[in-house]
Amino acid sequence: MLHVEWLPYALDLAGAFVFALSGAMAGVRHRLDLFGVLVLSFAAANTGGITRDLLIGAVPPGAISDWRYLGVSVLAGLLTFCFPSRLRQEWNPVLLFDAAGLALFAVTGAGKALAHGLNPVMATLLGMLTGIGGGLARDVLLAQVPTVLRSDLYAVAALAGAAVVVIASQLQLAPGPAALAGAALCFGMRVLAIRNKWQLPVAGSVAGPPQE
Amino acid sequence: MLHVEWLPYALDLAGAFVFALSGAMAGVRHRLDLFGVLVLSFAAANTGGITRDLLIGAVPPGAISDWRYLGVSVLAGLLTFCFPSRLRQEWNPVLLFDAAGLALFAVTGAGKALAHGLNPVMATLLGMLTGIGGGLARDVLLAQVPTVLRSDLYAVAALAGAAVVVIASQLQLAPGPAALAGAALCFGMRVLAIRNKWQLPVAGSVAGPPQE
Amino acid sequence: MLHVEWLPYALDLAGAFVFALSGAMAGVRHRLDLFGVLVLSFAAANTGGITRDLLIGAVPPGAISDWRYLGVSVLAGLLTFCFPSRLRQEWNPVLLFDAAGLALFAVTGAGKALAHGLNPVMATLLGMLTGIGGGLARDVLLAQVPTVLRSDLYAVAALAGAAVVVIASQLQLAPGPAALAGAALCFGMRVLAIRNKWQLPVAGSVAGPPQE
Repeated sequence: MLHVEWLPYALDLAGAFVFALSGAMAGVRHRLDLFGVLVLSFAAANTGGITRDLLIGAVPPGAISDWRYLGVSVLAGLLTFCFPSRLRQEWNPVLLFDAAGLALFAVTGAGKALAHGLNPVMATLLGMLTGIGGGLARDVLLAQVPTVLRSDLYAVAALAGAAVVVIASQLQLAPGPAALAGAALCFGMRVLAIRNKWQLPVAGSVAGPPQE
Repeated sequence: MLHVEWLPYALDLAGAFVFALSGAMAGVRHRLDLFGVLVLSFAAANTGGITRDLLIGAVPPGAISDWRYLGVSVLAGLLTFCFPSRLRQEWNPVLLFDAAGLALFAVTGAGKALAHGLNPVMATLLGMLTGIGGGLARDVLLAQVPTVLRSDLYAVAALAGAAVVVIASQLQLAPGPAALAGAALCFGMRVLAIRNKWQLPVAGSVAGPPQE
Repeated sequence: MLHVEWLPYALDLAGAFVFALSGAMAGVRHRLDLFGVLVLSFAAANTGGITRDLLIGAVPPGAISDWRYLGVSVLAGLLTFCFPSRLRQEWNPVLLFDAAGLALFAVTGAGKALAHGLNPVMATLLGMLTGIGGGLARDVLLAQVPTVLRSDLYAVAALAGAAVVVIASQLQLAPGPAALAGAALCFGMRVLAIRNKWQLPVAGSVAGPPQE
């Protein structure tokens, strides 16, 4: 068993909780039943981390061997299921929860990949994957094109957050402040992108008029 | 090589066969060609078990190293492809095959997870995942919201079946009868739920009128 | 670290490049943003190989530990994003790139599975999976029924290419020519199937009229 440092572990559980909220909210909207909502909570919360752990050979993945990930996922799912209207504000909370989960997972994912000896480029990429994996799984399970592939600076924000952690590690800076800075950068980019409708460019010469 | 006990092994192959029937039937309905039907058979039959094996570190997974899983999947796919109308009864047989596969996989999945030293809570969850993984893969490949997330007591039944196996193991009861009891419970719950249209509650305060 | 022979490695990177083109083109068509296109490039290029590596226990997968796979994926994505109309010929280039990637991955996937000691039948199947995995991931991410499950001799061609490699290995023939022969067979079958609209049979007695 690894000695689990408190900061990445707490951030990881917090990220799982907010991603689980986002998954549960999407499930409630699609009128899934209680168990479907819980499955979607767990998938949204843990697919990114589980995929990262499988890829770096950390088996069984933390989200499988440690019941707390299941616990926070179920808790978030039940809260969302019981009080959906409270969680539903004017400004789409799914996107806000999503941004927080993205930020937390990108930094913890990059940190874990570094700790398993991956090179800096791939550790950054795995941080991004940890962040976007849950949202990918959530949307694929609902038979939709994943938000991450379409929307405003989603994966770029995760990449930036992960890069901060990896660069700080290369410069041998303190990991705690670097993780917080990376998470803040990712969250800030995502929230600003949503508010201001920042978009990455779309290749325009193939399709005719937009098919909205 | 592990000493393979006959009962879980036979149940596992039987589960693969019935899930493969369910996958093949779904493929035939979507007018996939012969090979597409066989791919869907294999995916529906083995995705749950393969995912479980990856998560517990049993690599290569049984369904990859043992050709019999491929064999029963292909056999089920060919039977369904050649005689689709015989398999299609008045009462939707896909759901019946599905219920049987769910029951068999939930109990064998939980048993294998226990044998690899997972704690009881996560072993129960992995039993459920083994049961629902094939159906998830089948529906995702057909670009549909998975049945397991919507329908009548699906994952709950798998969870109950897996829980019987795990509880019996904790109480050190004989594993064979426990597996049969768990499978019977899961199958019975699922069939009764289909017949009586039992549903888990759906969170109602978010959406407006149902979007059927 | 394995001694990496140049031929399978070069073929693997070439396969990743052409699959990445196919993924990027599909992303451009669905009007994903730049980063979405790059994610789809990477997923189409590397999901098959990553899945194969996870299943045979080669962790971390080559596409994760070796940055060149990321490099060719990003390069292909950027090229497609910047010059989509140049890549778009009269005859659908996605299908052509797809056929080339399928051929290259089927032979390298089968070779790697053999090298890890899988039996001939499952090595052939894993070669096919390596070939079709990227296309499956690309289409699932775009919420479509995968082309591989519907279209003209897709998986069959991959299976044939992989079988050539495995049979040649059993007969202890030289692996280089066998890989080229397998790739040529797979690519040829697929191109002829597209040109001549060869189809595998579809089970007809279940559904009513075709739902095109």
